[in-house]
Amino acid sequence: VDAGGASSYRPTMTASWTPPIGIPGGTDTPDLVVDLDVVESNIARIAKEMARRGVDLRPHFKTHKSLRIARLQLEAGAVGVTCATLAEAEVLVAAGITDVFVAYPVWAGGAKAARVRRLHELGRLSVGIDDEVAAGVLGEAVRGSRARLSVLVEVDSGLRRSGVGGPDDAVVVARACRKAGLQVSGVFTHGGHGYGPGAAEKAARDEVELLRVVGDALADDGFEIATRSAGSTPTALRSAMGCVTEERPGTYVFGDWQQSVLGSCAPDGVALIVASTVVSTAVDGQFVIDAGAKTLSKDRPDWLPGHGYIPRFPGALVARLYDHHAACEVSDGAARPAVGEIVGVVPNHVCPVVNLARSLTVVRDGRVMDRWPVDAPARNT
Amino acid sequence: VDAGGASSYRPTMTASWTPPIGIPGGTDTPDLVVDLDVVESNIARIAKEMARRGVDLRPHFKTHKSLRIARLQLEAGAVGVTCATLAEAEVLVAAGITDVFVAYPVWAGGAKAARVRRLHELGRLSVGIDDEVAAGVLGEAVRGSRARLSVLVEVDSGLRRSGVGGPDDAVVVARACRKAGLQVSGVFTHGGHGYGPGAAEKAARDEVELLRVVGDALADDGFEIATRSAGSTPTALRSAMGCVTEERPGTYVFGDWQQSVLGSCAPDGVALIVASTVVSTAVDGQFVIDAGAKTLSKDRPDWLPGHGYIPRFPGALVARLYDHHAACEVSDGAARPAVGEIVGVVPNHVCPVVNLARSLTVVRDGRVMDRWPVDAPARNT
Repeated sequence: VDAGGASSYRPTMTASWTPPIGIPGGTDTPDLVVDLDVVESNIARIAKEMARRGVDLRPHFKTHKSLRIARLQLEAGAVGVTCATLAEAEVLVAAGITDVFVAYPVWAGGAKAARVRRLHELGRLSVGIDDEVAAGVLGEAVRGSRARLSVLVEVDSGLRRSGVGGPDDAVVVARACRKAGLQVSGVFTHGGHGYGPGAAEKAARDEVELLRVVGDALADDGFEIATRSAGSTPTALRSAMGCVTEERPGTYVFGDWQQSVLGSCAPDGVALIVASTVVSTAVDGQFVIDAGAKTLSKDRPDWLPGHGYIPRFPGALVARLYDHHAACEVSDGAARPAVGEIVGVVPNHVCPVVNLARSLTVVRDGRVMDRWPVDAPARNT
Repeated sequence: VDAGGASSYRPTMTASWTPPIGIPGGTDTPDLVVDLDVVESNIARIAKEMARRGVDLRPHFKTHKSLRIARLQLEAGAVGVTCATLAEAEVLVAAGITDVFVAYPVWAGGAKAARVRRLHELGRLSVGIDDEVAAGVLGEAVRGSRARLSVLVEVDSGLRRSGVGGPDDAVVVARACRKAGLQVSGVFTHGGHGYGPGAAEKAARDEVELLRVVGDALADDGFEIATRSAGSTPTALRSAMGCVTEERPGTYVFGDWQQSVLGSCAPDGVALIVASTVVSTAVDGQFVIDAGAKTLSKDRPDWLPGHGYIPRFPGALVARLYDHHAACEVSDGAARPAVGEIVGVVPNHVCPVVNLARSLTVVRDGRVMDRWPVDAPARNT
């Protein structure tokens, strides 16, 4: 991630910052505890903001991978769901959530050909595309279907991951799609270069500008560009303007430490905390919790000093992650919890953390209401 | 990880280094492809080396999480299995693999109390301990069982993660165990500070020395120390000497890029490769594959430059991981694969990669023999 030259940036950790999530008694750790009041408030807030702007909301499924939460988002007005893989789309479509955009440059060769075709025939599928050859393969996969498969051309607004670089390349890809029998219905981008301190404002402008230039070029070339879709939680509210018709944020539903530091998530917007138990204080200057890399993941942008944030011990640095241990360093003389205490960790990036879990412990007012399955863990193909 | 001052170390990537794993046709990517011939050879080699030294082998389950592979290890002479969590132990015991050591400072409070007790009554369980208070809680959990629960005192040989620092603290913890009705049957350590270029030799010496000093102190205090157990793939062959009675390597069964660079795994010892498809070449100077952080994990020691190694494109740097993309950078003019090509990636650290998967595609001579489940994915509690 290009953090805008902010590699020396250190977030301020304040003792007053406490997400409003109580860890219920009897929790077997490590466990993901989700406050449903906060989830609902996050869903309602973004839905309202998008409605006010007249912009469609198509939240990303990869954050929560929960059919229950996807339905809450749809009930709050989302026009459909975004996902990253065919396997996620299969989980959604099988559950009756059929308006699905796979925001990924799908290569529909091999085993994926029949899977794309089946999803297209069962649901209202659209997929991303950034390559002429891939367009031909995708067209071949759905040849002879009752309807044309909708595709959105991916454009790179600055992340330098995937997506064509500008209008000329977009026209080449769109024409290849048309030739392959696909329906070019829009353009999309992911302003992921906004994941850095102070970087979101420019990334949002980049998204809007690219979607305008590339969308207009395709329209000029005779394509009916109904959708101009931007994504990412840091940029979602900033780029929902001008030509943009749709936003695809994901992380907003739970929030995380990264979004908190970036200012895209208020302290009271953190809806998920990792409950963990202190298992060792044998080594001086630290305590060890049972949420390791197989729970918290090692996702850490270089502008965050640790592997999560512990609100009850704001001076503790989640310094080193092993598969099943996190060593949390405290400065000389600072308080540390005792062995056996349960502490909550706000994860750096919530998406891979949910992917590592099997269920979410759902609470309201600190009381367990339910356990919801993670419906699409490790659905990567 | 203390890499022994080697943060500027860069491994040599040579075009000639190719693990002998063919990716079978029809693979739906991303997928983990395991060469069973190599697995069997790795298992046989370490079993033979340990037998020659008269040291027991108790391989770590967390690497493969496969009951099939655990049985291969036991058939080759392993005395039992090591695991990290009660949930892993439950999978093993339910499958009839009952001699299980949980090499972890288990806090047996809350929901874990009944689980520890049940495992102890069903199998031949032993667990790690490094704390007086935790010893009391563990003793309470198994109070009244037909037999005493076996515990091994964890000692810190230099990793600074968990484990008591020396003989005096070990005696305190062991006495607390005895008072709690537990059977102190040994000491164990994990020389994880050997995970750095040139660091294994010293880490192995540290393991042997600590197990000697602490084991002798406990013996002098009247404890019957039957087991002095060391762990880690880099140190396993080096510390299997002197007072050490048992080794607990895990990664040796598959190997990975980290172990290859460290010299603990020969090129022909890499048994697992991540099959991935090139999904985008839209951005100059790179290609993007569909094995992202949710497949490869973000495990990267600072002495490895990228997030894996691609034998067919040895000059490519797996530079940036996103949840479902890896951007692989190539130097100007260097070859890059075309969109749709399938390439194999040797992961940095294989343990979290297997944990992210649901199954292993098992091959011999490049032909698919079977798909084996990952039997204990995300069993973190």
